[in-house]
Amino acid sequence: MAAELSAIANAVQASATLSLKAEIGRIEKTYGVKVIDMTAGQPDIGPTPDVIEALVQGGKLYKYGPVPGEAGLRPLLAETVKKETGASFTSDQIIMTVGAKGGIDSVMRAILDPGDAVAILAPYWVTYPEVVAISGGKPVSVDPTPDLRPDIARIETAVRENPTKAILYSSPSNPTGVVYTREELDGIAAIARKFDVWLVADEIYREFAFDGKTAPSLFSADDLYEKAVLVDGPSKRFGIPGWRLGFVAGRLDLVKAIGRIQGHAANASRPIQAAVEVAYGSAQARQATARMVSRYQQNRDLVVEGLNSLEGIKCPTPAGAFYCFPDVSGLYGRTYEFDGSTNKIENSTDFRNFLLRKANVATVEGGPFGRDTHMRISLAISREDCAAALENIKKAVSELVS
Amino acid sequence: MAAELSAIANAVQASATLSLKAEIGRIEKTYGVKVIDMTAGQPDIGPTPDVIEALVQGGKLYKYGPVPGEAGLRPLLAETVKKETGASFTSDQIIMTVGAKGGIDSVMRAILDPGDAVAILAPYWVTYPEVVAISGGKPVSVDPTPDLRPDIARIETAVRENPTKAILYSSPSNPTGVVYTREELDGIAAIARKFDVWLVADEIYREFAFDGKTAPSLFSADDLYEKAVLVDGPSKRFGIPGWRLGFVAGRLDLVKAIGRIQGHAANASRPIQAAVEVAYGSAQARQATARMVSRYQQNRDLVVEGLNSLEGIKCPTPAGAFYCFPDVSGLYGRTYEFDGSTNKIENSTDFRNFLLRKANVATVEGGPFGRDTHMRISLAISREDCAAALENIKKAVSELVS
Repeated sequence: MAAELSAIANAVQASATLSLKAEIGRIEKTYGVKVIDMTAGQPDIGPTPDVIEALVQGGKLYKYGPVPGEAGLRPLLAETVKKETGASFTSDQIIMTVGAKGGIDSVMRAILDPGDAVAILAPYWVTYPEVVAISGGKPVSVDPTPDLRPDIARIETAVRENPTKAILYSSPSNPTGVVYTREELDGIAAIARKFDVWLVADEIYREFAFDGKTAPSLFSADDLYEKAVLVDGPSKRFGIPGWRLGFVAGRLDLVKAIGRIQGHAANASRPIQAAVEVAYGSAQARQATARMVSRYQQNRDLVVEGLNSLEGIKCPTPAGAFYCFPDVSGLYGRTYEFDGSTNKIENSTDFRNFLLRKANVATVEGGPFGRDTHMRISLAISREDCAAALENIKKAVSELVS
Repeated sequence: MAAELSAIANAVQASATLSLKAEIGRIEKTYGVKVIDMTAGQPDIGPTPDVIEALVQGGKLYKYGPVPGEAGLRPLLAETVKKETGASFTSDQIIMTVGAKGGIDSVMRAILDPGDAVAILAPYWVTYPEVVAISGGKPVSVDPTPDLRPDIARIETAVRENPTKAILYSSPSNPTGVVYTREELDGIAAIARKFDVWLVADEIYREFAFDGKTAPSLFSADDLYEKAVLVDGPSKRFGIPGWRLGFVAGRLDLVKAIGRIQGHAANASRPIQAAVEVAYGSAQARQATARMVSRYQQNRDLVVEGLNSLEGIKCPTPAGAFYCFPDVSGLYGRTYEFDGSTNKIENSTDFRNFLLRKANVATVEGGPFGRDTHMRISLAISREDCAAALENIKKAVSELVS
């Protein structure tokens, strides 16, 4: 046999934002403009100084450490999860992962046999279908209600009609900013329990809830489903996605299986764990998170109002995370001139290119998130940039030709 | 369907050294003794101060970075590989991974379809069969020659008779310390080329060559096979296995596929990459490596001579890495008293327990490395501990009852 790449390797798609970065650079260079970047899936702030300094002490942890994570960090995270959700995971039920993304990957490797289906609640983070597929699973997208909330009846149908091993979602949601209600979470858990499937909840945005509210957690349920799996981490709340650390909490046999797999694959870096231990215990870091969320709420108010003032764009108000997710399909069919030719907007990629070229604002098209009628716009930038982007978008939209 | 763990998760074995750590603790506590630990798969020194300090500067890389690795590090590694082996990989052909272990995992995910075989040259590092299995592959162990060198005829037979996608080996070898010759490497490459399979060379111990020699590299071949894949990293040479960083170099389509997979799974931490960039450029770090290798060579001379002076033990002289791998089967069948009962030594696990209990020396049994007649003994400890361990082993062996 000729040995080339695996079928999975050939099928896996690069992240939707990567090709975009190249296009942003091309536009800036070719036309001498500054693009306002609203594609970010990360905060615009970094960690507090105490956390960065802790890396040096952490550097002394240069020998192999325990595969599941540092002895001090796991109990601290168990305590944090308890405080934030009420759920009682023991330290042994928590395992450190290489980012929350690496956590979802490890969960999928531990539960999926080839062909097993995972019901993914749309709109979903672009990585979900891919991370299921690279473990040999079959991603099944479940359509939401018209206002992009979980559709309990459709979830049940999807789980029943496929050889389902798990349900996967994020709340607060990337990309919509929708925060699932207690009733919605309980409804999803009831389906998982009825069909005896794992329920993987990505709560990486749990601390990003607006209007003084707390985002309901799956893990605050009165009668927590035993196959509920928490994916969480410090990347968003402390502004350290580049450090690559996350964690998973769940049933002991699952967590132990992940440990066995990670023991022969990728496990978390020790200096990073040491610094993150400082972050979770730092009042300074906690205050920085609160200030950031408050700032993103102000950005939200500005951007949502601005977008809704435009004919053809409908932008619901996100209750959490740091994205808005407007429906722009009211502008599909219109045209604009660029580089001497006429361009017609027919899908979300066209709309992304339109905003990039005519408003010099970078956003991510909704297609890869499961909604080709929508755009994902990040609020994790300065207020000034939000205001400038809105002005540019208003002008560009007003010049579209019907 | 009841959703429990995947078949792979249930089958994967924890690393052989983990259960051992618990047993060491039990012996020390129960009998009030100090066990000399010769199980280590890692240096007994850490990184130089300049490298640790670089973590703080690296901490400022808190935003998402490029999935394949930092812009400065990849060219530096391409240059290092060129200098050490002569091979010309472009920066684009190098991808950072979460440890060399994570690198092998990523390669396997990128090349294996379910059921594909990987020919693993025994004795092999314990993780090899597992890392193949967790990607759905079938590990095929290939027996060595009587002196534990690669058996070219057997490798060809194994590749021909199985649906082989790759050959996997390490040289300098963990666990044997054998360093493959130029002729052996070329012979293995010829088979890979003939059958058109990937050839994955784990050269993490490349800098650990004794007697003033250089370990021949697969990548120094006059006519380098295009499907030769290098797995390498800073963990052993700079004493930072706990930091979890490695890299893979290979054909561009493979490296790009690994990037797509890691983009949805686990990729390398940025502060760690920044510090490792300093390490590869540091004269101080390079000198520390040289001193360490020289010290392990002295340990080798002491331990090999000491073990060979014992009747029933045959210890070849390792040419690289930092292990010796004696055949202890000449002592199988003998007995010893412990805890009031008589114990008979019948395999490598029994021998490991004997050394632990009667000599208070911890070693790793050869079984999980593919040789149940042998023991892996790490030389990465102080000379004093080597000498004390030998005294203890001599006494314990002399008291064995035939």
